[in-house]
Amino acid sequence: MIITMQLGATQEQIDAVVEAITVHGLQTLVMPGEDRTAIGIPSAIGSDLRSTLESVIGALEGVNKITQTSRPYKLASIEFHREKTIVEVKGVKIGESHFVVMGGPCSIESYEQFSQAANLVKEAGATVLRGGAFKPRTSPYAFQGLQEEGLKIMKQVGDETGLVTISEVMSGDMVPLVAKYVDILQIGARSMQNFPLLIEAGKSGKPVFLKRGPSATIDEFLLAAEYVLSQGNPNVILCERGVMPLDRSYTRNTLDLSIVPVLKEYTHLPVIIDPSHGTGVARYVAPMAKAAVVAGADGVMIEMHPNPKKALSDGSQALTPEQFVQLMQELLRLVKFVESTSS
Amino acid sequence: MIITMQLGATQEQIDAVVEAITVHGLQTLVMPGEDRTAIGIPSAIGSDLRSTLESVIGALEGVNKITQTSRPYKLASIEFHREKTIVEVKGVKIGESHFVVMGGPCSIESYEQFSQAANLVKEAGATVLRGGAFKPRTSPYAFQGLQEEGLKIMKQVGDETGLVTISEVMSGDMVPLVAKYVDILQIGARSMQNFPLLIEAGKSGKPVFLKRGPSATIDEFLLAAEYVLSQGNPNVILCERGVMPLDRSYTRNTLDLSIVPVLKEYTHLPVIIDPSHGTGVARYVAPMAKAAVVAGADGVMIEMHPNPKKALSDGSQALTPEQFVQLMQELLRLVKFVESTSS
Amino acid sequence: MIITMQLGATQEQIDAVVEAITVHGLQTLVMPGEDRTAIGIPSAIGSDLRSTLESVIGALEGVNKITQTSRPYKLASIEFHREKTIVEVKGVKIGESHFVVMGGPCSIESYEQFSQAANLVKEAGATVLRGGAFKPRTSPYAFQGLQEEGLKIMKQVGDETGLVTISEVMSGDMVPLVAKYVDILQIGARSMQNFPLLIEAGKSGKPVFLKRGPSATIDEFLLAAEYVLSQGNPNVILCERGVMPLDRSYTRNTLDLSIVPVLKEYTHLPVIIDPSHGTGVARYVAPMAKAAVVAGADGVMIEMHPNPKKALSDGSQALTPEQFVQLMQELLRLVKFVESTSS
Amino acid sequence: MIITMQLGATQEQIDAVVEAITVHGLQTLVMPGEDRTAIGIPSAIGSDLRSTLESVIGALEGVNKITQTSRPYKLASIEFHREKTIVEVKGVKIGESHFVVMGGPCSIESYEQFSQAANLVKEAGATVLRGGAFKPRTSPYAFQGLQEEGLKIMKQVGDETGLVTISEVMSGDMVPLVAKYVDILQIGARSMQNFPLLIEAGKSGKPVFLKRGPSATIDEFLLAAEYVLSQGNPNVILCERGVMPLDRSYTRNTLDLSIVPVLKEYTHLPVIIDPSHGTGVARYVAPMAKAAVVAGADGVMIEMHPNPKKALSDGSQALTPEQFVQLMQELLRLVKFVESTSS
Repeated sequence: MIITMQLGATQEQIDAVVEAITVHGLQTLVMPGEDRTAIGIPSAIGSDLRSTLESVIGALEGVNKITQTSRPYKLASIEFHREKTIVEVKGVKIGESHFVVMGGPCSIESYEQFSQAANLVKEAGATVLRGGAFKPRTSPYAFQGLQEEGLKIMKQVGDETGLVTISEVMSGDMVPLVAKYVDILQIGARSMQNFPLLIEAGKSGKPVFLKRGPSATIDEFLLAAEYVLSQGNPNVILCERGVMPLDRSYTRNTLDLSIVPVLKEYTHLPVIIDPSHGTGVARYVAPMAKAAVVAGADGVMIEMHPNPKKALSDGSQALTPEQFVQLMQELLRLVKFVESTSS
Repeated sequence: MIITMQLGATQEQIDAVVEAITVHGLQTLVMPGEDRTAIGIPSAIGSDLRSTLESVIGALEGVNKITQTSRPYKLASIEFHREKTIVEVKGVKIGESHFVVMGGPCSIESYEQFSQAANLVKEAGATVLRGGAFKPRTSPYAFQGLQEEGLKIMKQVGDETGLVTISEVMSGDMVPLVAKYVDILQIGARSMQNFPLLIEAGKSGKPVFLKRGPSATIDEFLLAAEYVLSQGNPNVILCERGVMPLDRSYTRNTLDLSIVPVLKEYTHLPVIIDPSHGTGVARYVAPMAKAAVVAGADGVMIEMHPNPKKALSDGSQALTPEQFVQLMQELLRLVKFVESTSS
Repeated sequence: MIITMQLGATQEQIDAVVEAITVHGLQTLVMPGEDRTAIGIPSAIGSDLRSTLESVIGALEGVNKITQTSRPYKLASIEFHREKTIVEVKGVKIGESHFVVMGGPCSIESYEQFSQAANLVKEAGATVLRGGAFKPRTSPYAFQGLQEEGLKIMKQVGDETGLVTISEVMSGDMVPLVAKYVDILQIGARSMQNFPLLIEAGKSGKPVFLKRGPSATIDEFLLAAEYVLSQGNPNVILCERGVMPLDRSYTRNTLDLSIVPVLKEYTHLPVIIDPSHGTGVARYVAPMAKAAVVAGADGVMIEMHPNPKKALSDGSQALTPEQFVQLMQELLRLVKFVESTSS
Repeated sequence: MIITMQLGATQEQIDAVVEAITVHGLQTLVMPGEDRTAIGIPSAIGSDLRSTLESVIGALEGVNKITQTSRPYKLASIEFHREKTIVEVKGVKIGESHFVVMGGPCSIESYEQFSQAANLVKEAGATVLRGGAFKPRTSPYAFQGLQEEGLKIMKQVGDETGLVTISEVMSGDMVPLVAKYVDILQIGARSMQNFPLLIEAGKSGKPVFLKRGPSATIDEFLLAAEYVLSQGNPNVILCERGVMPLDRSYTRNTLDLSIVPVLKEYTHLPVIIDPSHGTGVARYVAPMAKAAVVAGADGVMIEMHPNPKKALSDGSQALTPEQFVQLMQELLRLVKFVESTSS
């Protein structure tokens, strides 16, 4: 942690900062700069002390800025967990050279629709089946999902096909219900900082699929994962699904693919890309899914609907079955190529 | 709703869009443009049909873009509720020419700290007392609040001082607990699209103070309010607390003050500005609070701590008691000036 | 300057960083942290050395991040120029308690239109007359301005009314031409980092009105001012005109009013707010202009057109003469109130 | 063009809008909506009339919003130029299945440095040589490039190696000078809306390499290309180099790879990706360059320095010769794979 003082900070103000630090048994290094003084803390700062120090020092007179030199997450950091995490569910491995495709419709609409989708997903070679039962919708007037009935359909279809299932849970108190029916708990982008939900999902012991919030920094994203991990649940899967776009008129979000090499450097957790929400446009899904493979992602999540024109939600970003099958073939070929060249 | 077709869309594709609309008993107007055809729906579209149409038409071949010509919110719209909403709590009126100041510390830390803060708030002339008991913290290692114990302190101090109290609730299942102790339920920026929470807060009947999410558009903000209103709860107060900044190195967020005249034009709900989170820097709070008055806000929420240097959270943005008292005097003078000149 | 090493950086890598610094005669302080080592440079770093060091150290193995502890601008910094700058043109003072209103149409369209606008501006009590002769337009098909003919009209009208004139210059080679006719050279938001233009404007000796780029950080903004100042031209006026919005559907830009107290803390240069471009909507101009006064701005720039419905550009954000006169009265009253209370 | 009226707009206000349109010989379609009236213009609107109409109608009372249904660019649009543009320089083809790599240092620092870099670029199999002579630097104190001397070095090295050369030009008046020495004129991100420069570059007849501005929308980007094209110069190459990031702490920009399929749908111009500036971190360049290939880009621009640790600018994002050679091999293999599977 480095504290930069304001221009013209007095010696007393500098001393007060030093004292606020040394009172906790920490050392300081005072660096009188060209124009302003900086105060460094070379010793280790415990995670709990870190935010207290930020608050206390931030309120002292003469302090201009506090810069962290270490990252705020621990359990999510590759430095404390050198081995890459592989999440295993019903025999499917997610992470480190086990490329996975998660496919299925935005919403579970009926047994027929979902069963049809699941069979298409399975035949195409994907191993994880997605589908929403509880839908977070911007408008209260939009279709809110089939709720528990949808979960039951998912359970049945999952059992029938052997596919791993994943569905979103929107609040902490719903975790037991959703965990009863599905294999992986999805935490949506808008819930990334729903801390009670993160804690309950952590406690459930189920694998947690965590989507990055639309304006979340990487530190905020990994701290959200840290909430789950700190409950003793090591099975967290990270998902990039596009950040707030500067231009909403061609795509719905801006898919931040460079997060793949960044996360691979800083965390041991698997990284999945969702090009369906990431672009919001069905015809841009294939190029971005393939780019994700090459960038080093551990998998992709793709929306597919047996009949997008009848979809009750997000029809414009869902692939048709034919498009999905073709994309799967291209992805598998590409994965094989990448593996063959990297060895 | 206007549907713009892709370049070179065929007549069949145009016909398919028209049919997808007319099947719902709606009329269409086909406008062949210079380069691409647009299809307008002049008739009224119910709120529930709106999103279904978006999904279905979005999946049709040849469709480029769907543009909404009407706003997606209804109950929050000034057009369906011409009279400005005034939320009244314990005799304090919030909205339309009843400028209100909400003051207090970020967190409730102890009875002594909070009671001292409350007395300062009251003596300075403010009428609403804020304080966090359940704290949404980016890091699981940061101080999480005193929880129910904090609520009890708030209740006691509220009773002793007669101040209206406001505190954050982070999940739907906690609404009854928080509602038992506090006068106004605050929904934080990171919870703006926590839909189960919005619904429970709506059902509680308590006034709801809704903070804009850091990357929420105005439509998303008002649709979040719509979730509360649609539960039969008319007492929603909107709060701008800064949006995602393009430069994090001088302020924590970018306070979007122009939202005040925008919201005043589109909604009947009261609008409060939070310059403490909006800037994140104590010394910028006063100028922005005063600017909020002049821009037409119905009030401000200000963080004040009896001793910011000892604050367990957000010390760097809290005013000292002296600064708070001085700001209150300036605000009251300014409010009086504005009233005298606008009449 | 603080260099943070990557996780697991070796002693050799740390030594290489230290050597890259000490070779320039600078001292270092090595801080072994909990997880990663940080290296501080306590000695003064000349401005020219700063960016070389960034490039060189940034390329060394094991380096994670370089954090600057001092700001990169010097001449624009209040620390090296404690006295606030007051730019004086034709007897009009801009800066430090000399609130100024700059009014006029987006474009100079004809002598009649511009003369009429100037007289309205003058009668209303404003002292600076704006108008575009060379128009930077997003589309090559939009009205590009009257060019030199427009400048001649501006010169004539400026002489007739005694108003200070300001107009935009779009490239370095046009500086002499524009400087011949107008009192203040405006550098538009899209030209903020047109470095040859900044240098020529600096050399001209004319006062320079510099608009913040739509996605410029404050350091980038003040470094652009530094380009002008470093040519020996001390007369730079800063203007905030809105940054890239996260929601383009209600306002054209997001007016960042908190930049006023920030700039007042870090620079001695005058700060003007442009609520016309900042919102893009005529009916939001008045509240934001008044908010600018209270936030501490040194003036506002307001678009007014004798007949907005006939404007060749930006009609939707221009005030009518009646609206302009009323706003002027409100601003003057407010300025007087602010002065009376701050003394 | 669709004009949406304000809530409660009167019949007179609607009539005034209709009249403002019909006076230009255009037809209108009035659509009375559920809550607000929309007015469509089905007839073709010339590009010059478009912005005039926007200005005039935007100033009329009762108008809420103007939505364009057609895109504002023409010459850049694929619809008016169905054949993909291939830019050919010195036998090198850029565009449509002619994947190109542009490599070289950020700055030309000396004949030795640049010649060495050029030979590395050539041996690795790349065909275009980049290098800056005039450097746009955020700080006036940073290295500004060797200027004309640098151009002479580039010319000599280009002649010696036979590589196509590309270098940045920063202002319109410098176009003849730069055009004398280099094969392709680069217009930097910060100059994307330097309209006098765009016009001069257009007039020069030289191929123009146009970088997207850090906060430019796609319409703004293609309108900048339109400026060049409208001068009769068909040889425009588009380059994405990252947009304003929401998190500056891990990468310098956010590389928007989804722009590749978007641009491929809307324009006939070649699209190049610059992952060096797009990420700002050398170790993220390779994964993003490979992702660009798969996403459908026509080429990449890569910074490489014979000795990044001695680079006078941008050392942290430059590849070493070894890294560059390896990346070239991977790219060529990947291009071959993509070609083999797409046929």
